[in-house]
Amino acid sequence: MKFNIALLAGDGIGPEVINEAVKVSDAIAKKFNHEITWTPALTGACAIDAVGVPYPDETHEVCMKADAVLFGAIGHPKYDNDPSAPVRPEQGLLLMRKKLGLFANVRPTFTFPSLIDNSPLKRERIEGTDLVFLRELTGGIYFGEKGRRDGGETAFDNCVYTRAEVQRLAKKGFELAMTRSKKLCCVDKANVLETSRLWRETVQAMEKDYPEVTVSYEFVDAVAMRLVQWPNSYDVLITENLFGDILTDEASVISGSMGLMPSASVGEHTSLYEPIHGSYPQATGLNIANPLATILSAAMMFEDAFGLKDEAEAIRAVVNKSLEQGIVTEDLAPKGSKAYKTSEVGDWLVANL
Amino acid sequence: MKFNIALLAGDGIGPEVINEAVKVSDAIAKKFNHEITWTPALTGACAIDAVGVPYPDETHEVCMKADAVLFGAIGHPKYDNDPSAPVRPEQGLLLMRKKLGLFANVRPTFTFPSLIDNSPLKRERIEGTDLVFLRELTGGIYFGEKGRRDGGETAFDNCVYTRAEVQRLAKKGFELAMTRSKKLCCVDKANVLETSRLWRETVQAMEKDYPEVTVSYEFVDAVAMRLVQWPNSYDVLITENLFGDILTDEASVISGSMGLMPSASVGEHTSLYEPIHGSYPQATGLNIANPLATILSAAMMFEDAFGLKDEAEAIRAVVNKSLEQGIVTEDLAPKGSKAYKTSEVGDWLVANL
Ligand SMILES: CC(C)[C@H](C(=O)O)[C@@H](O)C(=O)O
Ligand SMILES: CC(C)[C@H](C(=O)O)[C@@H](O)C(=O)O
Repeated sequence: MKFNIALLAGDGIGPEVINEAVKVSDAIAKKFNHEITWTPALTGACAIDAVGVPYPDETHEVCMKADAVLFGAIGHPKYDNDPSAPVRPEQGLLLMRKKLGLFANVRPTFTFPSLIDNSPLKRERIEGTDLVFLRELTGGIYFGEKGRRDGGETAFDNCVYTRAEVQRLAKKGFELAMTRSKKLCCVDKANVLETSRLWRETVQAMEKDYPEVTVSYEFVDAVAMRLVQWPNSYDVLITENLFGDILTDEASVISGSMGLMPSASVGEHTSLYEPIHGSYPQATGLNIANPLATILSAAMMFEDAFGLKDEAEAIRAVVNKSLEQGIVTEDLAPKGSKAYKTSEVGDWLVANL
Repeated sequence: MKFNIALLAGDGIGPEVINEAVKVSDAIAKKFNHEITWTPALTGACAIDAVGVPYPDETHEVCMKADAVLFGAIGHPKYDNDPSAPVRPEQGLLLMRKKLGLFANVRPTFTFPSLIDNSPLKRERIEGTDLVFLRELTGGIYFGEKGRRDGGETAFDNCVYTRAEVQRLAKKGFELAMTRSKKLCCVDKANVLETSRLWRETVQAMEKDYPEVTVSYEFVDAVAMRLVQWPNSYDVLITENLFGDILTDEASVISGSMGLMPSASVGEHTSLYEPIHGSYPQATGLNIANPLATILSAAMMFEDAFGLKDEAEAIRAVVNKSLEQGIVTEDLAPKGSKAYKTSEVGDWLVANL
């Protein structure tokens, strides 16, 4: 098969980790007889520097024409301390989500047996954890009307959801639950918010279409607790944009494998795959960043965007092998043992595929 | 001294834990020569059952006239599964907060050396944790305009903050930081929300009035992560209502002592003291609920509402002693050792004061 992949390396360590994901993807493509064309495009701080905006129209064109987008990370310290600056890298992210219609952010949290002791949680709390959040990504308070009144003394942000927005996200949740253990948790704050009541009634009305799925409804504050206490009691969780932002990040650190967690954002047009970690500016150019989350995001891309399960499994298998054999960057290397460079990890994976 | 305390026992285990807090408070009053008058009043599901509303005007009158409010817990399963029912116990809670002007919810999280191994987190992650959240409690998306449009197909919730609302909460944060390690963390989502940008600019402008306090600004998603990774890196945190709801609950489970965490809500009129746990309906009437969070809330009341530090310390000391000697309810009793009843714990504390 032939694929055209938009390559949005972004800022900081983005280009370094993307580079390794490209190496591994090309090796997989060769092995399985596929042909990949990579089309690089600018986004984030580097796009602001080059053309003045964080998600240029040319980049959007490249993404729209591609079969998938592979994304690194964006953000640069020079924009960090001023969230009210007129142009910021995050705006590019939000614009990209909206223009590509990426309404569902798929965020798995799972454990690697060899890394379980890195978790801040006790082994017996985290063992067996394998959950997936579906976070709504193009609605809610992120995209509602916002502004100031009373000469700047009053600020407001509007949170808005339509039934159709909830339905399309929930549909993905039910479908995902059907491929897993048929358990779905709808996370809301229906005891306080009207948007949450719309979420809850919409999901309740869909239950009859998926009679095999057991649905539970939990308040966001209760989930924030139980994620730390019994993360392995969850399977598929669906939630709105802001709750998803907070809870998926909370979930990401419990496994002890945050530097390895991939993600996908899917919706109306091209799907996007990216590591969940940030642009880690302090490490830029040092060839020390862990490329595995990006490489595992490429695996998700092969499986979900191209329907190539064997290719995805081959990537996951070689990543597991590298972890077991300790071919890891400094974030994962136990004290006293050798840490490999970003590019060395990629080379080892390619050689061992 | 003479005190008049409004006693809002509420639902479920509320009356049982409140009963023990009254016993201990009366014993302390006797020992230190104070006189307490308790004025019981209805709130929650029991108020709905009795008079049709969850926070009756008579209850409000009692609270307004009191020197402090001691609160148990509210909520009953018959209201749980229908967040859109017209009258619900939580509405009483929100109305009470608003009418009493309780704009700051003070939520400490700390560890008890004897309970540290109950934490889901590893000992080295949690040891030394001693943080306090100040959650804004009468503004934000909880109290903004909410409703439906398009024949019910679109729902909205408005999040609104004024500079004055941020200032009065932040002032309490700076003042609290001055009595502790002079570190203040402002938690917001200023990269996305206009209300968060108002929070940030308001707190930034106040920094000059507290030159000794070191202020950091962190995004809510990052805090949700670091609370699990390095809870002991925090001291005083201030945040808006919804973020506070999620993060204080997350923080409450990390110490392993959730059943022991007290809280205060303070503001324009009478201050209120309550355990952070819920009404635990399954345990109602069984005399098994842990009364310590309520008793420690009474200690906060003596110290903060009445300025009686010795009295508060005496309560805390005897609570510590009971924990060390294993005079604990079943939630804390190690497997195989005796669990004490709710009332037995209270009796032991009174006898050992
Ligand atoms: C950078 C920020 C706007 C973004 C978000 O809040 O969605 C990030 O935290 C994320 O989760 O991708
Ligand atoms: C019951 C609910 C309305 C309430 C809140 O969200 O404030 C509770 O979760 C709390 O934190 O006291």
